[in-house]
Amino acid sequence: MRIAIDAMGGDHAPHAQVESALSAAAEWPDTHLILVGNPEVLQPLLGQGAPRNISIESAMEIIANDDEPVKAVRRKTNSSMVVAGRLVKDGLADAMISAGNTGALMTVGLLVVGRLKGIERPGLAAIFPTLDNVGVLALDMGANMDAKPEHLLQYALMGSVYRSKVHGIHKPRVGLLNVGTEAAKGNELTKLAFGMLEEAPINFVGNIEARDVLDGKCDVIICDGFSGNIMLKSLEGAASTIFKLLREELTSSFTSKLAAAALKPSFRRVRDRMDYNEYNGAPLLGVNGLVVKGHGSSDAKAMKTAIRQTRTAIGNGLISALADEISGK
Amino acid sequence: MRIAIDAMGGDHAPHAQVESALSAAAEWPDTHLILVGNPEVLQPLLGQGAPRNISIESAMEIIANDDEPVKAVRRKTNSSMVVAGRLVKDGLADAMISAGNTGALMTVGLLVVGRLKGIERPGLAAIFPTLDNVGVLALDMGANMDAKPEHLLQYALMGSVYRSKVHGIHKPRVGLLNVGTEAAKGNELTKLAFGMLEEAPINFVGNIEARDVLDGKCDVIICDGFSGNIMLKSLEGAASTIFKLLREELTSSFTSKLAAAALKPSFRRVRDRMDYNEYNGAPLLGVNGLVVKGHGSSDAKAMKTAIRQTRTAIGNGLISALADEISGK
Repeated sequence: MRIAIDAMGGDHAPHAQVESALSAAAEWPDTHLILVGNPEVLQPLLGQGAPRNISIESAMEIIANDDEPVKAVRRKTNSSMVVAGRLVKDGLADAMISAGNTGALMTVGLLVVGRLKGIERPGLAAIFPTLDNVGVLALDMGANMDAKPEHLLQYALMGSVYRSKVHGIHKPRVGLLNVGTEAAKGNELTKLAFGMLEEAPINFVGNIEARDVLDGKCDVIICDGFSGNIMLKSLEGAASTIFKLLREELTSSFTSKLAAAALKPSFRRVRDRMDYNEYNGAPLLGVNGLVVKGHGSSDAKAMKTAIRQTRTAIGNGLISALADEISGK
Repeated sequence: MRIAIDAMGGDHAPHAQVESALSAAAEWPDTHLILVGNPEVLQPLLGQGAPRNISIESAMEIIANDDEPVKAVRRKTNSSMVVAGRLVKDGLADAMISAGNTGALMTVGLLVVGRLKGIERPGLAAIFPTLDNVGVLALDMGANMDAKPEHLLQYALMGSVYRSKVHGIHKPRVGLLNVGTEAAKGNELTKLAFGMLEEAPINFVGNIEARDVLDGKCDVIICDGFSGNIMLKSLEGAASTIFKLLREELTSSFTSKLAAAALKPSFRRVRDRMDYNEYNGAPLLGVNGLVVKGHGSSDAKAMKTAIRQTRTAIGNGLISALADEISGK
């Protein structure tokens, strides 16, 4: 299988991208990694003894994080992200991964790779950590700001297929993000979507409140892109605030510093379990090819996690399974 | 001033309600507390030597947490919550506080107390803890699920007045909850609201992302009731998950148990700073009287915090200031 990596996108690009590709190439000889970017930058990083299953695809432009997505994708046709998308579109790669500008990546998915037949609006998924360590797939995280009930239905169908094909979960439980658990709760969107989800060929477990998402009550949580983004960033913000407060408190006296030092490994484990990088590799579901978003701050380890998930998705025929599900085959 | 307390609503009712009233009555002799509920239950709790500035208003019914709000308010006309609302409506109390069924309390605000002239949809506010300890007033937390841009504008005006009148903040900074900081970000609702907030006579500081809300970047954060509820419960869920993971980790070995014991006061302080009870007393803004929501799990301390805030609001003429602001006086 062939995976195109946008080597120039992300806070730690190109180093993290090259390092993860080298590690993946060594671990998985059946996988060909295509690093897309400026060869003059990438070649020295790869060094002389680069393995045969890594190649460089030249792309001289870079889409920056503050570029306006649609404009950047239309104008920077020789950027690493757009070229990676074109490799997928042309069948020269089975998937692409980028840790760059999220809006631009969604635009590449829509305009370069193209939508899956029957999908109006692709959705961006993310894996949240849960107490039981299984994680929950949440979508849409912000691809589609004004979702309609039928979009939520399509997210539910696609999320179910993803969990079953990529994570091997039998009959994944699908929940609808809402303000209360009763069927009649919510806004117009969730009320209409609730009825459609009940009729859908999925394991729908009803409304789930935001405070219960991390408890592992469902395997897929469905929401519109605006609410999803609010949830994602609220969780990030709360975690970051609590760890800041803890650091403040635990360095406030000599005794607490001593005790805290003894607990450092424990704190690190909790931090890691709340860390989205551990679950890196959010797919853009609904495009006609595998487009995977890495967290902007991805290091080499996080990029490798994304590569691992992408391999599983390719190996299990995710895209054709999604196409079959949407067309009702 | 006279404050009616729904003595039968909340997880710790009526004990927490009676205890907080006794403590408030002792601390503030100028304040008359009216405990609304079943006298046969309340009288024994008050005891013989109840101070003169506490009285009981009889109400024999109770609205339960799982009662359907509108139905309950319409049918249980002799419930403690409805009777407390009627005291406000009839000018026999300056404010009411309830830790009972949130939906029912909003319905009491709308149907019993009535809306402020010029307000289409009242909004439920909450105070979130921030790193700088100032806190941020967030609204709407779920009174109005399908908000229009003009509702968000009214929340901004009312939130500003509340922060200035009750918390003494000069020119409170008002932010709009959004998925990015740029003006063009968001869904149709926030894009339209952004323009209206820019024109409004408030200190509008632009879009704020959910992850930055706890950083203290604004004094008031405005959102529709659905997103607000998602944010509130995501923050609660993340905090609860992190503390669960910490407990798990810190009791996993003898050494970590020892070290954790030494840090107990530190952990408690962090927990308290993330605790919404510390900031109890969320006003329903936009009704023609002061209607204050206590957290369902309020203990006596939290109820007293709500009473304190309510006193300040009454003392500073909050309702007439809101009426003036909305009518453009």
